[in-house]
Parts: sequence; structure tokens; C-alpha cells
Amino acid sequence: MSGLLIKGGTMITAAETFEADLRVEGEVIAEIGVNLAERAGEEVVDAEGMLILPGGVDVHTHFDLPMFGTVSSDDHYTGHKAAAMGGTTTVIDFVPQDTAPLLENVRRWHARADAKAAVDFSFHMNISHLDAQVEREIPELVKAGITSVKVFTAYNNRLRLSDGEILKVLRIARQHGMLTLVHAENGDVIEVLVAEALAAGRTSPEWHALTRPAWGAVEAALRSASLAAQAEAPIYLVHMNAGGEADQLTYARSKGVQMMGETCPQYLFFSLDDLKREDGAKWICSPPVRSPADQERLWTALQKDEIQVVATDHCPFFYDGTRPIEYEGQSVAIPGKELGRDDFTRIPNGLPGVGDRMLILWTYGVGAGRLTPNQFVALNCTNPAKIFGLYPRKGTLIPGADADILIWDPGKKIRHGVANSAQRTDYNLYEGWELQGVPLAVYLRGKLLVRDGRWYGKAGMGRFLHRSPYAPVL
Amino acid sequence: MSGLLIKGGTMITAAETFEADLRVEGEVIAEIGVNLAERAGEEVVDAEGMLILPGGVDVHTHFDLPMFGTVSSDDHYTGHKAAAMGGTTTVIDFVPQDTAPLLENVRRWHARADAKAAVDFSFHMNISHLDAQVEREIPELVKAGITSVKVFTAYNNRLRLSDGEILKVLRIARQHGMLTLVHAENGDVIEVLVAEALAAGRTSPEWHALTRPAWGAVEAALRSASLAAQAEAPIYLVHMNAGGEADQLTYARSKGVQMMGETCPQYLFFSLDDLKREDGAKWICSPPVRSPADQERLWTALQKDEIQVVATDHCPFFYDGTRPIEYEGQSVAIPGKELGRDDFTRIPNGLPGVGDRMLILWTYGVGAGRLTPNQFVALNCTNPAKIFGLYPRKGTLIPGADADILIWDPGKKIRHGVANSAQRTDYNLYEGWELQGVPLAVYLRGKLLVRDGRWYGKAGMGRFLHRSPYAPVL
Amino acid sequence: MSGLLIKGGTMITAAETFEADLRVEGEVIAEIGVNLAERAGEEVVDAEGMLILPGGVDVHTHFDLPMFGTVSSDDHYTGHKAAAMGGTTTVIDFVPQDTAPLLENVRRWHARADAKAAVDFSFHMNISHLDAQVEREIPELVKAGITSVKVFTAYNNRLRLSDGEILKVLRIARQHGMLTLVHAENGDVIEVLVAEALAAGRTSPEWHALTRPAWGAVEAALRSASLAAQAEAPIYLVHMNAGGEADQLTYARSKGVQMMGETCPQYLFFSLDDLKREDGAKWICSPPVRSPADQERLWTALQKDEIQVVATDHCPFFYDGTRPIEYEGQSVAIPGKELGRDDFTRIPNGLPGVGDRMLILWTYGVGAGRLTPNQFVALNCTNPAKIFGLYPRKGTLIPGADADILIWDPGKKIRHGVANSAQRTDYNLYEGWELQGVPLAVYLRGKLLVRDGRWYGKAGMGRFLHRSPYAPVL
Amino acid sequence: MSGLLIKGGTMITAAETFEADLRVEGEVIAEIGVNLAERAGEEVVDAEGMLILPGGVDVHTHFDLPMFGTVSSDDHYTGHKAAAMGGTTTVIDFVPQDTAPLLENVRRWHARADAKAAVDFSFHMNISHLDAQVEREIPELVKAGITSVKVFTAYNNRLRLSDGEILKVLRIARQHGMLTLVHAENGDVIEVLVAEALAAGRTSPEWHALTRPAWGAVEAALRSASLAAQAEAPIYLVHMNAGGEADQLTYARSKGVQMMGETCPQYLFFSLDDLKREDGAKWICSPPVRSPADQERLWTALQKDEIQVVATDHCPFFYDGTRPIEYEGQSVAIPGKELGRDDFTRIPNGLPGVGDRMLILWTYGVGAGRLTPNQFVALNCTNPAKIFGLYPRKGTLIPGADADILIWDPGKKIRHGVANSAQRTDYNLYEGWELQGVPLAVYLRGKLLVRDGRWYGKAGMGRFLHRSPYAPVL
Repeated sequence: MSGLLIKGGTMITAAETFEADLRVEGEVIAEIGVNLAERAGEEVVDAEGMLILPGGVDVHTHFDLPMFGTVSSDDHYTGHKAAAMGGTTTVIDFVPQDTAPLLENVRRWHARADAKAAVDFSFHMNISHLDAQVEREIPELVKAGITSVKVFTAYNNRLRLSDGEILKVLRIARQHGMLTLVHAENGDVIEVLVAEALAAGRTSPEWHALTRPAWGAVEAALRSASLAAQAEAPIYLVHMNAGGEADQLTYARSKGVQMMGETCPQYLFFSLDDLKREDGAKWICSPPVRSPADQERLWTALQKDEIQVVATDHCPFFYDGTRPIEYEGQSVAIPGKELGRDDFTRIPNGLPGVGDRMLILWTYGVGAGRLTPNQFVALNCTNPAKIFGLYPRKGTLIPGADADILIWDPGKKIRHGVANSAQRTDYNLYEGWELQGVPLAVYLRGKLLVRDGRWYGKAGMGRFLHRSPYAPVL
Repeated sequence: MSGLLIKGGTMITAAETFEADLRVEGEVIAEIGVNLAERAGEEVVDAEGMLILPGGVDVHTHFDLPMFGTVSSDDHYTGHKAAAMGGTTTVIDFVPQDTAPLLENVRRWHARADAKAAVDFSFHMNISHLDAQVEREIPELVKAGITSVKVFTAYNNRLRLSDGEILKVLRIARQHGMLTLVHAENGDVIEVLVAEALAAGRTSPEWHALTRPAWGAVEAALRSASLAAQAEAPIYLVHMNAGGEADQLTYARSKGVQMMGETCPQYLFFSLDDLKREDGAKWICSPPVRSPADQERLWTALQKDEIQVVATDHCPFFYDGTRPIEYEGQSVAIPGKELGRDDFTRIPNGLPGVGDRMLILWTYGVGAGRLTPNQFVALNCTNPAKIFGLYPRKGTLIPGADADILIWDPGKKIRHGVANSAQRTDYNLYEGWELQGVPLAVYLRGKLLVRDGRWYGKAGMGRFLHRSPYAPVL
Repeated sequence: MSGLLIKGGTMITAAETFEADLRVEGEVIAEIGVNLAERAGEEVVDAEGMLILPGGVDVHTHFDLPMFGTVSSDDHYTGHKAAAMGGTTTVIDFVPQDTAPLLENVRRWHARADAKAAVDFSFHMNISHLDAQVEREIPELVKAGITSVKVFTAYNNRLRLSDGEILKVLRIARQHGMLTLVHAENGDVIEVLVAEALAAGRTSPEWHALTRPAWGAVEAALRSASLAAQAEAPIYLVHMNAGGEADQLTYARSKGVQMMGETCPQYLFFSLDDLKREDGAKWICSPPVRSPADQERLWTALQKDEIQVVATDHCPFFYDGTRPIEYEGQSVAIPGKELGRDDFTRIPNGLPGVGDRMLILWTYGVGAGRLTPNQFVALNCTNPAKIFGLYPRKGTLIPGADADILIWDPGKKIRHGVANSAQRTDYNLYEGWELQGVPLAVYLRGKLLVRDGRWYGKAGMGRFLHRSPYAPVL
Repeated sequence: MSGLLIKGGTMITAAETFEADLRVEGEVIAEIGVNLAERAGEEVVDAEGMLILPGGVDVHTHFDLPMFGTVSSDDHYTGHKAAAMGGTTTVIDFVPQDTAPLLENVRRWHARADAKAAVDFSFHMNISHLDAQVEREIPELVKAGITSVKVFTAYNNRLRLSDGEILKVLRIARQHGMLTLVHAENGDVIEVLVAEALAAGRTSPEWHALTRPAWGAVEAALRSASLAAQAEAPIYLVHMNAGGEADQLTYARSKGVQMMGETCPQYLFFSLDDLKREDGAKWICSPPVRSPADQERLWTALQKDEIQVVATDHCPFFYDGTRPIEYEGQSVAIPGKELGRDDFTRIPNGLPGVGDRMLILWTYGVGAGRLTPNQFVALNCTNPAKIFGLYPRKGTLIPGADADILIWDPGKKIRHGVANSAQRTDYNLYEGWELQGVPLAVYLRGKLLVRDGRWYGKAGMGRFLHRSPYAPVL
């Protein structure tokens, strides 16, 4: 078969809404036009009444990530599949740094991912240790297609760099067209509070949040901005969770700092109260979910374009890792949240979301009147692609772009939850939430991955994306 | 000839930049695609190295407008031609209200415009007198394709409505899907100051500005916003000139008011100092040009999307209307600025700009690093089309849209001024300014209007646009 | 008796809190000192455990004011008495303007007030009609001791001046060291909404508020600020009621406008819900009480010194003016709120408060932790005295100042209401509210007016205050 | 002699301006009154035409401080004398922490100071090393009269505490009624930049500033605020130097943080350009002087009460410590700025100012129209006394307060500089600046220290002040 012709849909991009036909040739969008004529051998898809969206881009995932003696429960296949089932066709995962050279770390991550990949993917490189050798290695990442690095102001003695080291990373990154991502919390404060909580026997999940205060995220956001300002480098704030981070991001930008940011659905819908539930461990992630007031501030920030991206920080674990679940005909169980039953510091940090993001944001963002469909596309597809050097190949519907396409049925109603998700874990944060508007079909470079909830993809279909250097685009 | 194929250009829309071919069939964009195949009978245009932009939309013009015993010197033909030479293919003109029924006013304006029109056009209706009959007539405008009305808080005893009347107009407008435009100045204050200035023998042009203080515009902006809030109606602030207007627009929006605004190039580049020149009358417009600080605030507002539109308020007069100029082989002279040589209140209010807008903003906005090319398109084309019910027919490059297309040569350098402008007047505000980047070719619904600075259009080619009801789009 | 020595109290001024003795000689504070020695013939008051405050200054009262066919129910005696019983020893009342010369209006107001006055008092002059003659007369007020005028942006065809006239008043005021007060609402909007409400048969009290929207107050605040800016004159915003007024006051000040403002207790404690009560007419005043959110914004404005003064706009009426009450041995009944039983526009506008202000603000401001005792003094005493040319004679505790002194018992608890108030009306807005902290004794220029709730004053004791020209003091 | 009677002056306090006589008995202000009668044996001072101000309180001095192999050139006598000559009668000096117990550090500082003290004084305790023992010792300071501690976010490996340690200090401080002062810069960034500058051979004084960027101060201000928020403790930001610090202080306060701040005259009048002078080392202090824009923001912050205190961070050195100067008949030379002639990191950090503060701020603050006389008193006297537990004993003119009194001659003009200063160093930052308005006489607890520029004080007259616990007062 030589092509695909999607007829009669309404195209939604970051800025436009219009009716048109769309032709795919090979792996790319070849034409967008009025009443495009069918060609021989072409598959024609009737999209009357449907919306046509670009495939989602989730720039923040952690597949197959070792942590706390276990591993995140989605690997690069199951996670990619879950992503695609939820409308996401590009993911960027984080390569952990160990003592090996950076490119060796990257090589190993390729070894875990490449054969399994079912959607297109790229990597960010964590820099959690810096010395002269690492400084020399960072620029080598660009040739390997990796144009972003991540640093941490938290996780003392594990992942954290000092502010001076972050300054150095920012300068190297700027010089080589790389973007620096920052996990912003105050590691020192957390260290003190955690030690005190444990000493006091406070071991339940809400103490995870109470020992990682929002103020620490807020100050670390400005601190990161200040380092970026001093390095004259762009910076990207991951998983914004506290309303004050939006205040400070906006402040920094008003002072000329090239700062961008992302939030994640968990920070828009959940709060400390969820951590206080009996099964609160399900909501454990870092930084933690905050308060309803923080949620409101983050929504406003999305509406006003103060925050540019919604990603997921997908890093799932089983709630009860001792009980296997059925997954593609196999029984799977990986130690999970139960590891921290008696000690919140041992609960694996992270939660599922790569497949939930677009579903939940459509119904509870667009449907709820908080976002327009165009903003939905900007936040989930176009902006992340632009910021991370994937545009115009990914993130939009234009001729020449990869044919990563969603046929979205705006009328379809389903109930979300584990049963509707391909995420490999035993719970879903949005269990039972009603959805209206879901992807009917998902294409990756013109190939059908999903239709009517059925999976047509397979491991190895996903391709590693060499990303372009950072350029200011927003 | 059956079509047009523009090959190899870089398409610039409000949110996207990408290389593609563009096919026009009949009057509309039929396809945008990669390597589109040439069809028989199709004209092929090589746009290698060129930018492809949507035709400009200028929502604020005054052609052939009687004023102060004369008339604005561009009529609906010469003004349209000047617009097109400067890249603008859609204009919206204002219909003055006299004692006749509104539709009769509209009919008369059609009589002045229709046969002359050389670009597509529509009308706003001024409401400068309100009574029960007029209230009943306003909704009739919608069927006539006019979905916007304009009110004035200035020009006591001439154009001004009371605040209560404006409130009524806003409510009627909202009920019928119409958008209300407001000219915001404080008419009472102006009346006092003008009388005092004249009594004191202060008759030179700068007194035009000194008797129309910026604070009056600022308060009237908030006053208008408050009326819109009370009517729960959208509102659009024309010709923003004072930085404080941007403050108040942003304030109102933060309080939930659906308020949008436009500025004009004259407010971005000129100030009171220009009115103090010997030929200061050239810069007389209402509201007046302000200060450099105001200019800076307006630029920031454009950059931050606080102001959505750049229009022109084109209303030209001859500087010396006693001296005819050659225009298309004829000698033309219309009384102009000299009428007010001894009294600033008699200087016809207005200045040329419909043909300058995009040229100046490209070089001194985009070229100067103040705006991105996408912002340029958003401000000059897409946003005005969206706000005024012309989208997606006008203002963007998508299949199905009218083939109003600019082939923009980003490298071409010329010197601007009267000689480079088709505006029918004897001066240009930007005389001698160097330009880099100008339209090489301009198409209106697929027909060539301009190429290499030569005019191919003719009177009657322009079509009246029935506009859609207002819908919140930004 | 030749003097008074108050020993052992804690002095509270706008900025200081300290223990000291205070000696009064004649009418003024002669000494403040440590362990002042008793002198022969001096009355010694033991104030151990008591607070010593300056007498309150209420710059906004309407005694004996004709309105809607009746008159406000406190005259210049009963109102003064009520003021003193509540800790206020200086009041400034408004002189209405009729067609007579301004000084004749003032003379007549003196005729109503002078013989009755029981506390010190002064006048503001309303300017509700402006012509060349009135313009000439305004400066004459200064010699009559009146250094402030009030204008209205509301009450079309009754009290309202046009914006141009207000500009003129502001300039005259500035030139002669006078301060202009402004009642800020949008008269046009109110006119429209009232007519509509009546036409629709909406006659109940809440329609008073619904026809005077908060947005009108907000815009009129900025409008007034803009006129002051243009006149380079100071301006004072009376009875701030909408939170947005505080926003705009602060905005104006940040732009260099000399703007100050007052709020009143009714706007801090009541809202539209109170107007919806069966006896909602009791809460009718203009501008109306607003929403809880407005209350919160006003409290914040007091705390942050955005608003400088708390006054009362005291203008009481009987709720049931057909039923006489006992007042000083007489049966008194004056037509009141019942006049508007079937039409909210006929309900006399105004409510009691001159005697409630300090009592309520102490318990529900200071006691509730919203204000410090020093802020209480600043807002109720010192700032109004400074702003209105009474300082340092009034409003503070310093040698040479008039001995207007409150001995305040911070521990005393009583229940407030009609029975605890000397206001001549049949209701109290704060009926049943518990108070802790009340004036034990009140002195006016060294003479005892009140002790233990008993009245020792008498008509004629109050003296008219010639006020100094306005000077920027805050 | 048994007393002092100052007659006919105009008293200036933080909130009041009034004419009165002031009587001192023993060491305190006994009475303030009108026409106070002279008593037998009392010295009468005619202050007609003079202003009476409270003695200044400088809460930030470093006398006799060892640094970089030398010592600050004013000891506790010469510095106190210089303070008094400039109108300051109370100083608070910082006790460095070494490995000894805190109280031992305090004891040693008493040993350096007590016998020399010529004005009243107190101490803050630096906490530059924290362990369990130090944590236990901090509360012991309160009994020693020291109710404030200072921490540093800069000076890695010397003075800096980690953020976690600062959090702990803040909590201990709060629990014991102590206020925590913070020196806010980013130590990590400075460490990196200094190393780079030295490696690059950049050794001149301006590199001191270029290696300590303003952004570091700004983020550290918010970081400190966040730690205070988490500790629910008050915090005081010393030597504010960057405009952004004022932004963040105001932000923090709007979020409920009890944060206060001080700036110093050097940050109001000097900038990087001064460091680039040939004798730039004279302006070396930490944090460094910034830009004119920072100066403007700090002035605004003083005017709007965003910053509460002006102190000096007095820590003088000789510019040429190899050349002795004459001081009280002796030849004095202490190694100074020349130590860093070839390496900016070896230039002793600090500059003179304890005697300049009030002189310069009067002429260039009050005289220049930037501050009112009352604000001058608030910033230099009252606010620091209130914040640091010295009020109402110090910082104001009220009965019972210590008779620390300035008789200020508002008309006197002199030229400032080394010759007009008692600071023991060979330069003055304000050399040659014209002053109008200087202290004619200075009293400490009723004793004459200075009159007509002559020194009457002597070592040992100053008394150590046991300060009260911190209470929120502003």
C-alpha cells in the first residue's frame, strides 16, 4: 500500500482549526488540501465528524528505571504502547548517569530501549555528577542526538549538583546549543525534614509531601532562573507543582531570562489530601502533589501561556507488587509501592501517566472549558516539539512533518481506569473518571498503531530521534 | 488559466514555519504539500528563498471620509491599491452614522466603495447617536454582514455616546454576536483643554496632543472595560496609544473581561516631539502619538500578547492640499492639513498608513528583533481575521482559505517613502526609512495584484465580506 | 479647676506605644512625661491598665441632611453626641450646594450646626453645580476655614459634575491648597440600570446594589485619578467599597498621582446578602455594600496602607419612621426607610455609623488581629487629621495638641446595639455584636464629654475648625 | 547638674512633627511639653529653629574585626566616636563565631568592646558553624541580651551554613524569640566565578563585583524567605543591594512571610563604575555595589516602606595602610586595601560609613525630596530599634526613653569628607559632597557627646544593651 488519505476531518493545530483532507505518503504528511483526490492504492479513511490532531509529545518519561531496589514497571515497550494508546507518539526518556562516560550511559540506555521502542523516542541526559571529564563529554551528546541535559537541586548526595556546578552545566549547554532541564526543590531542607520525620516515627505517605515543602520548589525555581541568567542560558523547569513556581517563572521571564516550564496532570488534579488516603502511596511522586490553590495557579499559568508544556513524569510502580497482573498474556509483578509500607522514604517515587495525559486533559481541560483545543495541541504536542528540537518534524500537522496523527472522536464517551489503559501497573490515578473525546486511531509515521482501542503496533517500530540544537522558538 | 502552484517557499503562519508548496485552485488555497506535482495549465511560481505569508488584514481604515470640510485623500480604490502594494488584501472601513437608518448609511457606503474596491473589504458601523430606533436597527446589521459596531467616549456633541448608551450598545451587540469597538479618550477633558488652548492662542500642532492627554485614554480604556464587564460583552479597544491602556487592558482581562486591543504603527514609532516639528501637522491623528515610554510599553504588550492586533487607522490627508500631485496620470489635490495652519483644531485628523504597516513592521519589528515572523503574521493577519469573523477564510494559509497570498522577499532592500507608496498623499511618515524584506508578489483570491512593485489590480476586483458573528477565539 | 493629669496609662499613637503620664492645661495637652507631679487644683485620673488614644476624627458625616422629603435623623447635636459616645471628637460634615453663593450655603450650614455642636467640627463644601461664578467662589472657602471640596461622578442631573468640570475644580483646588474629594460611581450606568429595574418591577432593596455595579466604582476611581493627574492635584476617594478601587488607587499612586482614600466600616462587614434580608433597607447606602471578596481586598488595603482613612459616611434614617423613639426624654420620629417600601429608589440613602466606627473596628479590627492598635489610631485619628489640615492640632497625642483624649478600657466587654449607641435611629447595623475594648472616658479639649457611658457634653461645646491648606503629608 | 531642658525645637519622630520642649532627667526623657518651666540646676538649651531627632540606631557595624590578616580600622572606641559624630548613638556589632562556645565568643567580644564603648551598643551573634552543641547554645544568648543571630548563604567553607542548617537556626530562633539575619548571596556561584577570574588573571577591583552577581543576591533573598516560611520564623535581610531583592522581599511578604530588610547608603549612591575607578578598592564591600537601576529600585523600596531600615555595614579599612594617619594625637596605620593590590580577593571587604549614614541621607535623601524627615527617622532610628528589641528605650522621642537626642541644624552647610568625619581611615566615600543639615549636638542618655563638631564623649560611656525578644512590630 502506498499511502493514506484522511478525508473530511477538522484539523486542530496550535493556532488553527479548519476542515481539510490530509494525505500521507510514506512516513510523512504529503498534502493538506480541499477535496484531495484519492490515488490508486491509497487507503482512504473517512474522518467526517472527527478531529485530526498531531500525535502527542511527552518529553518526560522514565521507563525501565531502576529505583529503590526495583524498577519502574513500564519498560520501553509497554510504556511506549501505553503512550500510543493515549495518543502520544513521541517520548523523551532520561538517561541516568553513573560513573561510566556519558556516551556509554547513552549506549546502555539504547540497549534497553531500541529493540523495544514502539513510538519514536529520544533521550535527555541526567548530569548528576560533574567533573572536568564530564564537562568535556557533555558536548559529545549533541552528535548523539541528545541536545538536553537535566540537573537536580535536590537529592543530596545522590543526584544533586551544587549551584556552581549547575552554573557550569548551563554554560556548557548554552555554548553547544543544548537546553538544561532542572528539577527544582531544596535538597538541604528535604534532608533535614526527612530525618526529623523518620526520627519522630512519621512514616505514612503524606510525610513524603510534608518533608518536601512547596516553598523549596518555589525558591529553587528562582535559583535556577538566576543561574540561567548568569550563564545567559535557556532553562526549562520540569514538573512544576507549586503555584509560586509559576510566579517566579513569570518574574524571571519579565527580567529577560529565557525560562520555560512544564507541569504534569497529577499537579493539576490531586493534592495532599490524596496522599492521606489509605492508598496514598499511589500518589507518591517527587515533587509531591500540592494544594488546591496550587492547582488553580497552575491552570491559570497554562491558560496564560506562562507554562508552555504538559508532560507526565511517567514512572509507574505497582501499588501491590507482590500480586501479579496479566499483561499481554503473561503474569507480571514487579516490586512496587509496598516496599515503603512502613517508611515513606522507601516508597518508589513515581506514578503512571504517559497514557492518561491527553485523555484526561481533553475531557477535564478542554471539555471543562479551561483550555481551547488549540491550547491542548500547543501544550501536548507543538510546544514540547519546538522546545526540544523536534519541530517541525514532530508536534504539528504540516506537509513534510512525520505523519504522527490522531483521529480524535470528540463525541465518544468512556470510563477511564486500569481497564482502559495500557500502562503496566495495577492502578490508575483517574480510576472511574468519565471521558468524552478519545483517540479513535493513532498513526506513527503513517503506520497504524491504534484503532478503536486495539493495538497494532509492535516493538521496534519506534525510532530514535536525533534532536536539533535548542533555538528560542516561543 | 486554471490554477497557481507556488513552489519551494517557506510558509509563515501565526504558529508555524515550514517549507511547502502551495496550490491555488480558483480563488482558494487547495493544497499545501511536499513537492506538489504541477498540473496542466497551472501557473508555477518559483518561490525558492521566499517566504509565503497570508495577505494582511487591516481592520481600521477610513477611506473617502468627509471631515472638516474636506475628505480623506484615499478613496476606496486608491486606498485599496495602496493597501495591496503594502501586502494588505483585506480592509475593514468604518461607516459613519448620520440621521438616516443604519442600513441606509451602509447602503451609501457601499455606493462609495463597491465599484472601486480592489481588495476584499468589510465595514464596521459607527454608532454615534443612539435612540430606540437605532437600538432596533443594530441587529439588522448582522444580516448585512456587519458584525461590529464602534462607539466613542470622545468627541462631545459629535460622535460621543454617554456611558449608559455605550452600555446599551454593548448589550445589544452581545445578544446578536457582534463585537463593540471603542475609541477611548475622555471627551469632557478634551473639550475643556481645547477651549483653553484656543483662548490662550495656542494653535500649533503639538497642542493637539497636549489637549488630549494620555491619562484620558487610560481611564477611558478601563471605563470601557467596566461597561463591557457590566454588559458581559466582548470589547475591542482601537488604536491603543498610551502605555497605561495596556496596563488596564491586562488588568481587565485578569478580572475576566473579554477585552482585546489594537495599536497602530504611528504609536510605536513617533511621539510628541514629531508634532513639534515644523511639519508636525503630518503626525496629527486622534488619539495623538505619545511618548517614548508609551512606545516601549506598547512594544512589550505586542510581545507578550497583551495587544492582539496591529491596524493603521489609515485616514490620510495632503500636507499641502493646495498643491496637486500626479496620481495615475491625473493631477490630484484635495484640501488637507493646511486647513489648520492657524488652528490645530482645524487640521484634519488622520494620517496615511495602510500601505506602510507591514513594510515598516517587518523591518523595524521583525528585523529589529522585537517580533518573530510568526508574531508578525498573528498581529497583521490571523488575529484580526479571527477577532472580526473572517477566519478561517482570511488571515492564514490553510486549505479552503481564500488565496490571499504574499510572496515575501526577505532579502530585498529598498528605501521607503512617498515614491515607494501608493498612498494618495504628498508625504509619508517613514520617508527615507530603509527597508529589508518586502512583498514580491501579492495575490487576492488567487489573482495577481502586485508583482515587483507593479500594480495589476483594478477597481471592482475587491469583494464585500459578510462577516461571521463574534466568537471568542484568542 | 485648672487642669487634668492622666496617670499610668499606655499611650497609643500612630507609630508609638509607651507608658507615660499626660497633663492637660486649659484645652491642650501640656506635657507627656514620666511620673509627672500633681499640681494644685489639678484633677488626677488614674489610667493604670488603660490605653490613652487621641480622640477620633470622622471626616465623613451627614447630619441634618435633607433627602427624599425627609432629613437624616441625627442633627448636629445628636450626631455629635453619638460620635463622642463612640470615641470621636472631631467630625467634618458636608455642606450641600444650592443656587446660593457658596459662602451663603456655608453660612446656612453654620446656622444649623453651630449652636448644637457638641464636638469640634468642620465642613467640606459639595460642588454639585459649576459655573464661572462658582469657580470664583471656591477659593473664598479657604478663608472660611474650608479647605476641601467634594465632587460626584454619579447622581446625574442632581449632584454630578462632568469630567471636564471636575478637572476644573481639581485645578482650582490645587491652586488654593484645597483637597478634592470624589464620590466615584458611574452615573450614566446607574441611570440606565435603575430605569430598567423599575420598568421591570424590581423594587426591593437589593436592586439598589444591583443597579450600582462595583465596576462603575472601579472605573470612576481611575477616572478620578486621571483627572487629578491631569490637574496635578491631590485627590481623595471617599467611601471605597469595591476591591478594584484599591487596585486602581494603588495603580494611580504607582504612576505618581497624589491619591488617598477612605473606606467605611459598612464596606468591611456587610454585603449584598444583607440587602436581601427582610429588613435590607437598613443597609441601603450609596455606594452600596458589595461582596465578601471586596471586603477582603479592602482589609488588605488597610493593612498595607493602600487606604489611609476609615470614616463613616454617617447619614442615618429610622427604619420605621412612623414609630417614634424616645430620645433624651422626647418622642422622636422622622420619616425614614419606610418611604421606599415599594420602590428602592425612594429609600433614603444612608445608614448610621458615627458612633459605631471605633467600637467596631477595635474589636473586629484590632481584636481580630487585622490591625495593630497603632494602625487603628492612624486610620481613625491621625491620618484623617493630617490629610484634612487638622494636624497637629487633632488626631494625635503630642504637647500643644488639643486635649481630645480617649481613656480606653481594653478589657471591658459589652454587647453593642441600639441600646449602647447614642445614634438617633431605631436600629444599629451591629446589633448584638460583642465588643471588648471601649472608651471609658472621652475628653474634648480637656473637658469631659463621656465617662462610663454617661454623657456630660452639651450643645454648643463644639467649635468650628478652620482647617489648614492641604499639604502632602503621607 | 541635675537635668537638661531643650526648648523651642521641632520634634521629628517616625510619624509626628511638632514643636515642644523636652526635659531630660537623669538618663531619660522625662517630659515633652509646651513651655516647660525651667527647674533649678537644669541646663537649658535653646533649640529655636532646630530639629530634635532621636539618636540614630545603626544595627550593622563591624568594629575591630579581624579579616584577611588585618583588622577593620575602627575599634569599639573610634567607631563609636565616629558614629556619634554622625548622629548615631546606638550600634549593634556582630560577634564572630569560632570553635569556642557561643557565650565565650560573646565574652571575648565584650572584652574588646566594653571598656572602649562610647555609645550604647549590643551584639548580634554570627552562626557560621552549626552542630548539636551550637544548637543548644543559641538560646543561651537571649539571657546574655543577644536576641538576634546572623547566618550566611555565601562564603563557602568559611561562614556559610547549608540551607538545612539555616532552617534549623531559624526554628531555634523563632522558638526563643530571636530574629535571624541573613547575608544573602549565592556562595557556590561566587566560588566558581572567583576561581575563573583568578585563573584568567582578572585581579582588579571590579572583578570583586563581577564575581558576585546580583542575581545571586536576588535568589538567595527568596531562598532565605522560603526557609523562614518553612520555619514560620521572622527573617531580616541585611545589606540589600540588588533591586530584585526588593521585588522578592515584597513577594515573600505578600505570601505571608515575616520578612524585613535593610539597605546601606553605599548601595543607594554607588555602582560598578566606582569600582572601576583607579582607587576602586575603596568601594569594595560584600555584597558589592550594583547598578543605577538597582539604586533606583532601592530608593523606591525605602519610599514605599518595602525596606524598613538603613544601616551601614561599617567595616572600614585604610586605602593605603602603609601610610599612617594622625588620630587623636597618635600616628595610626593598619594594613588595608593595599593588601589586595594584585588580587581583588585579598582586598579587605568593607568600607566606612557609620558616621556618614545620617549626614548623607539627610541631604541626599530628605533634602533631595526622596524621603520625608519622618521617614528619615523611621529608617535610621525607630524601625531598627523596634525590630531589634530596643524600642521604646531607643529610637524615638517619648517620655521614658533614653535621652539619646540629636539637635539638628537644618540650615547648616558643610562639605563632607575625611576632615569632617571621625572614622579612622584615610578616605571617605563621599569626599567633597556638600551637606545641608547636620547634628549640632548629640546626647547619649542625657550626656553631651558632641557639640559643634567637638567631641565630649569618652571611652566607657557606652553601655551594653540587653535586647528584648523579637516581636512583630511593623
